[in-house]
Amino acid sequence: MNGVVNCAAYAGGRRVADVDVKDIGEALKQTDRFIWIGLHEPKEELLRQVQQEFGLHDLAIEDAHRAHQRPKLERYGDSLFVVLHTAQMNREQGRINFGETHLFVGPRYIVSVRHGSSLSYAEVRSRCETTPQLLCKGPGFVLYALMDFIVDQYFPLVDVLEDELEQLEEEIFGDASSRETTQRIYEFKRRLLEVKRAVSPLVDMCNRLMRTDLELIPEDTRPYIRDVYDHVLRINELVDTLRELLIAALEANLSLIAVRQNEVVRKLAGWAAIIAVPTMIAGIYGMNFEFMPELRWSLGYPLVMGVTLGICGFLYFHFKRSGWF
Amino acid sequence: MNGVVNCAAYAGGRRVADVDVKDIGEALKQTDRFIWIGLHEPKEELLRQVQQEFGLHDLAIEDAHRAHQRPKLERYGDSLFVVLHTAQMNREQGRINFGETHLFVGPRYIVSVRHGSSLSYAEVRSRCETTPQLLCKGPGFVLYALMDFIVDQYFPLVDVLEDELEQLEEEIFGDASSRETTQRIYEFKRRLLEVKRAVSPLVDMCNRLMRTDLELIPEDTRPYIRDVYDHVLRINELVDTLRELLIAALEANLSLIAVRQNEVVRKLAGWAAIIAVPTMIAGIYGMNFEFMPELRWSLGYPLVMGVTLGICGFLYFHFKRSGWF
Amino acid sequence: MNGVVNCAAYAGGRRVADVDVKDIGEALKQTDRFIWIGLHEPKEELLRQVQQEFGLHDLAIEDAHRAHQRPKLERYGDSLFVVLHTAQMNREQGRINFGETHLFVGPRYIVSVRHGSSLSYAEVRSRCETTPQLLCKGPGFVLYALMDFIVDQYFPLVDVLEDELEQLEEEIFGDASSRETTQRIYEFKRRLLEVKRAVSPLVDMCNRLMRTDLELIPEDTRPYIRDVYDHVLRINELVDTLRELLIAALEANLSLIAVRQNEVVRKLAGWAAIIAVPTMIAGIYGMNFEFMPELRWSLGYPLVMGVTLGICGFLYFHFKRSGWF
Amino acid sequence: MNGVVNCAAYAGGRRVADVDVKDIGEALKQTDRFIWIGLHEPKEELLRQVQQEFGLHDLAIEDAHRAHQRPKLERYGDSLFVVLHTAQMNREQGRINFGETHLFVGPRYIVSVRHGSSLSYAEVRSRCETTPQLLCKGPGFVLYALMDFIVDQYFPLVDVLEDELEQLEEEIFGDASSRETTQRIYEFKRRLLEVKRAVSPLVDMCNRLMRTDLELIPEDTRPYIRDVYDHVLRINELVDTLRELLIAALEANLSLIAVRQNEVVRKLAGWAAIIAVPTMIAGIYGMNFEFMPELRWSLGYPLVMGVTLGICGFLYFHFKRSGWF
Amino acid sequence: MNGVVNCAAYAGGRRVADVDVKDIGEALKQTDRFIWIGLHEPKEELLRQVQQEFGLHDLAIEDAHRAHQRPKLERYGDSLFVVLHTAQMNREQGRINFGETHLFVGPRYIVSVRHGSSLSYAEVRSRCETTPQLLCKGPGFVLYALMDFIVDQYFPLVDVLEDELEQLEEEIFGDASSRETTQRIYEFKRRLLEVKRAVSPLVDMCNRLMRTDLELIPEDTRPYIRDVYDHVLRINELVDTLRELLIAALEANLSLIAVRQNEVVRKLAGWAAIIAVPTMIAGIYGMNFEFMPELRWSLGYPLVMGVTLGICGFLYFHFKRSGWF
Repeated sequence: MNGVVNCAAYAGGRRVADVDVKDIGEALKQTDRFIWIGLHEPKEELLRQVQQEFGLHDLAIEDAHRAHQRPKLERYGDSLFVVLHTAQMNREQGRINFGETHLFVGPRYIVSVRHGSSLSYAEVRSRCETTPQLLCKGPGFVLYALMDFIVDQYFPLVDVLEDELEQLEEEIFGDASSRETTQRIYEFKRRLLEVKRAVSPLVDMCNRLMRTDLELIPEDTRPYIRDVYDHVLRINELVDTLRELLIAALEANLSLIAVRQNEVVRKLAGWAAIIAVPTMIAGIYGMNFEFMPELRWSLGYPLVMGVTLGICGFLYFHFKRSGWF
Repeated sequence: MNGVVNCAAYAGGRRVADVDVKDIGEALKQTDRFIWIGLHEPKEELLRQVQQEFGLHDLAIEDAHRAHQRPKLERYGDSLFVVLHTAQMNREQGRINFGETHLFVGPRYIVSVRHGSSLSYAEVRSRCETTPQLLCKGPGFVLYALMDFIVDQYFPLVDVLEDELEQLEEEIFGDASSRETTQRIYEFKRRLLEVKRAVSPLVDMCNRLMRTDLELIPEDTRPYIRDVYDHVLRINELVDTLRELLIAALEANLSLIAVRQNEVVRKLAGWAAIIAVPTMIAGIYGMNFEFMPELRWSLGYPLVMGVTLGICGFLYFHFKRSGWF
Repeated sequence: MNGVVNCAAYAGGRRVADVDVKDIGEALKQTDRFIWIGLHEPKEELLRQVQQEFGLHDLAIEDAHRAHQRPKLERYGDSLFVVLHTAQMNREQGRINFGETHLFVGPRYIVSVRHGSSLSYAEVRSRCETTPQLLCKGPGFVLYALMDFIVDQYFPLVDVLEDELEQLEEEIFGDASSRETTQRIYEFKRRLLEVKRAVSPLVDMCNRLMRTDLELIPEDTRPYIRDVYDHVLRINELVDTLRELLIAALEANLSLIAVRQNEVVRKLAGWAAIIAVPTMIAGIYGMNFEFMPELRWSLGYPLVMGVTLGICGFLYFHFKRSGWF
Repeated sequence: MNGVVNCAAYAGGRRVADVDVKDIGEALKQTDRFIWIGLHEPKEELLRQVQQEFGLHDLAIEDAHRAHQRPKLERYGDSLFVVLHTAQMNREQGRINFGETHLFVGPRYIVSVRHGSSLSYAEVRSRCETTPQLLCKGPGFVLYALMDFIVDQYFPLVDVLEDELEQLEEEIFGDASSRETTQRIYEFKRRLLEVKRAVSPLVDMCNRLMRTDLELIPEDTRPYIRDVYDHVLRINELVDTLRELLIAALEANLSLIAVRQNEVVRKLAGWAAIIAVPTMIAGIYGMNFEFMPELRWSLGYPLVMGVTLGICGFLYFHFKRSGWF
Repeated sequence: MNGVVNCAAYAGGRRVADVDVKDIGEALKQTDRFIWIGLHEPKEELLRQVQQEFGLHDLAIEDAHRAHQRPKLERYGDSLFVVLHTAQMNREQGRINFGETHLFVGPRYIVSVRHGSSLSYAEVRSRCETTPQLLCKGPGFVLYALMDFIVDQYFPLVDVLEDELEQLEEEIFGDASSRETTQRIYEFKRRLLEVKRAVSPLVDMCNRLMRTDLELIPEDTRPYIRDVYDHVLRINELVDTLRELLIAALEANLSLIAVRQNEVVRKLAGWAAIIAVPTMIAGIYGMNFEFMPELRWSLGYPLVMGVTLGICGFLYFHFKRSGWF
């Protein structure tokens, strides 16, 4: 059936059978088993079938079908509905592709529904299957494994963002054109906001998972959830640091634009002075008074030119020394 | 009677009778029924009549009459008084029209009072009537249906605001006049504040509804309230993101104004230099010294003009290369 | 006795006797009565007399005598000491006059002490006396009536502040001188801070009154306190909105100052260019070279003038088109 | 012994004996007494002696010896260790001198240790001794008296800061040089931070004292602690208001620097135009064309000068009217 | 064995034996003993061996091996896993070197694992061994001693940062080049963020340690933990103060850049005026009108020059007096 990536029954931490969605009821008759289903952008009818097999709530199924949810953790009786955002950097397009994963977790089943950009969870499944002593803890452990996998995808993303900030810093403190820099700062801020929005609800979700009284998450699975919690805190902290640095970078940018204007104005003022002086002196000796003795001196011209050059030279070195040029 | 849009009795999730306001007491004698009344900007006497029928509190009736309340949720004994703000984008006038809806919800009645700009709740009523298995949960479910309807009106509004921000970004990063841009940023901020003020109290209201011990909201209605809560969180998040982006856009705007001034000042400085040089040289050869040999050279004029042009050309390409022009 | 505005005994919601301060002990012998005293800037001896009659705490009396307290709610045994700030707009002087009202509320008495600018509470008294069914709830209801009266005085004040902000907006986005605008923004901020300081402690005070286990505030008086609470929240929200808008206005102001400078610099640059060109050309034909053929052409002068005018005209229309003029 | 300012035993609110530090054990044998010791920058050996007499904790004694602690309240068994910052304005040097006072309070003793700049507590002692009916409440009341004394020293300090802000405002909105203004704003901010750091922990300390279950602070002493709490809140509020106003002042300063630059640039532009026009016209009539009919008119010179003056005058009045001059 | 710095058994506060890692099980058979092991960047096999001896959790061992954790406190059953960041100023390179220390603390053991830049804990060990009356409190006291040692390393670091801020202030308020200043402000902010990130989680960690019900931290060890808590609060406060001052310094910097531009523009404007006046006058007397009577006066030239010089002198003193030069 289209949309089902994988559907298997587990007992004692080992995969005991591949199950067809319509045979789930049968498979669950053996009480030591749990079912783990992976779906990828399923059609509504498939979702409805899964809903019937496990008795999932209408509202959760609607959310899983429509996608475009916030990351959240909702409890329905003794089962959980979890929405997570996945993120991957598309380096070619220079933008982040977001996806959504919806998890239905009950005492004897876990259903993952992937939407949009995300890696397949086949890797998580095979990794889990190599540690039966952990997998036998049940669907709660699978929930941990999936969350851990999704959260760890954010670390390389944050690395890319850190690289980008470094480039921005170089641009800001270098001499590159600041019009594009300003726009790039804005784009970077927008990207940070997107990542923050995907990651920050996870803090509260992990916290609630760690404190829940659900049988789903047995005592010995909690340290694992706490590990995910710790990673989530770390990513949040990294993103917050980037944000604070960006604010600082933005202020530095504004200061440097002003500093650069100061430099240009000083240069402008200096050269204006150096050119204005000979213009003024030349103007004076261009006057048509009949009685201007200097005009008749044979050394008048070179003398005036020499004095003028001297003044200009003095000004030049004066401005040089003052750091205006 | 003027002001009553609809008034019906429901039993087992089905509309069993249209009731006149003055016959409500009679209709409620059958204990399996509840009454759902829709009012639109009612006169005081009508409100007083409704008050008497259900024993509503004076203060709540005064609020419902005067309108201009903040969104709020107040408990009076075993009933609730709810104030919600409705919002609709008026695309022609380019502004948001706000309205108010007041709800009185008791164990066996729900009264909605509409003020100002809002859609009719006839649609909610007919939608509810198509799902008797849900409507039979009673007035608590109707409360959910009305809140859900009102909250969902904010999504298209936020879409419009997102479009507007995109236009603002284009203006800011493009070359359009920035005087109007600044004013438009201000207007946008004001609009965001209005929406925020209407939406943010809903978070707390839904939270309290989800945790209340009122019989009105039975256990199986809570997931529905949580669904509204989720939408409210989402709208809040969207508005907050818009706000953060607006702050970033504003800072970008300020930076770009400064950058543009730098560019103008550089251009000004460059052309001033290019024009000042020939003026200075012409001034020198305009001096009236008797002994200025160059003046007598037959090639003096073209030579001086050539040199001058050369200097100007050099300056032009120099500035061009430095990115000043 | 100077300082006593009114002093009466109430029973069953009706005024049964006007009492002299020194006869209070006598009047309270009838256990169904409570006393309501209104004082206006009383002398210390009067306060001491009142203190003795009701057994008020030294610290509260000192506060009431010295005034200059923050708005607060203090419990002494089974009685309350309440400090409220009253505010009135003095439109002529364009500033807000603040006053203080201190309330001592016990199970069988309420004492109000007015300081500074505030309306008389005679109006509250007469309004209460018209609704004996409410007044019979006792001093707790009088406390509500006084708080409601004081809080409602802030609404017109906020209206005035909203008008002022609108004027500021007009100044900022218009072309009025921005030096005074900056100062007016500062004054407005200061005023908002004053109002905020008077109003914001009320939120917590009302909250505590609503939750108190004091007999003073019986169950059926709480919806009234909640009504005051609601008004206080509304005023706070209005003030906060004004504050956010003021921040936005300030940023707009800063942007527009920069935009205006850009405009001036552009105009300056443009006209400088238009004047510099003929000056340069005139300089060239002012040179004294013996061999300058143009000088001898009979159409040399009009030709040069024509070309010069042409260049200036071109520049003028060029700048016009670029939006520099 | 050096370092001991005062050491007395109190019974029933009255000083019954001056005690030597080494006789404290003896003095405490009478169970109705408590000891109040005032120390000023004591040597370590004295502190150790006091420690032995009352059985104080090592860590608290180390803190009291080293000083440089944050304001704090620590409970050791049934006794308290309190650190307070004292502050005094040194008007000559224009800076605030901070000191520290450490208090050890037990059921039957109170020890105050003064470090750095602070007034003597002899005044508090003599004031307490005049109200034996209060002092008989024990060390808890002395703790109140000392805290009240220390906290009330902050009011004149805040007054001085308010005066300083007013001067800053005058400078900012006046025409004084803004280079020093900027530096003074910075110094003011630093000073506010210091005061805030000394005062803000007191809020939490008073709060904990009010709620403690220690026998030290009996029920009837709590209203006094609440009074200190109220003063602390007031000082905090005043400091916060100063901070908010300073932020506003700083923004006003930045705006006005920009406004002033606009004014200078406009003036510069205006006068440049007024001088450039005659320079250009003079340049034109300085050209050496043979055929320039105006040059030969006998009224050419006065006519040109007149027209030039006319243009300059027109420009002057034009700029005057536009508010550029 | 490589990686083990020290491994000893303690009984009654005294070191009773140096133990080899593989003999730990043996050593713990005597129930009055506890083991204190110090590791430095251990290999995985060593860590695994230690894990087996004490039954540590997989996740904690993984963290200790990989390092790059946030500071945190995790409880596993009746033992604790603590991660702390150590920091040392490298004055030569002008940057902070961070390290990590991981502590495993159980009822009868404490294991410290050092990574990266940090001082050896041999000093802590020998200091503890000199106070057997404290060390006999067990691993909880060692935990305190290590935390105290690590936290106290931050004080000299904060001193260095305070010195740096002072230098920045001098640069900002002096006349040094502001391009590098802006970059240095940015670097300083980044450094503050790093320190803040290392220190701020400690507040919560100490708080939890003080309130824990673990046997590890007996009642009489808590005042010591509170002492560390106090130091942590102090460091946090110092860092926060630096941050606030940095914000103020940054704003001062921006203001002063603008002020300096104002000064340059004024100077530019002033000198432009002083040079433009003689240029204009010279231009006028350079006109070629036949009838210009002044040109024929024998004193025309000196008169005009004198008047010109007079105007220039007047302008110079005028600008001097206005504070433009």
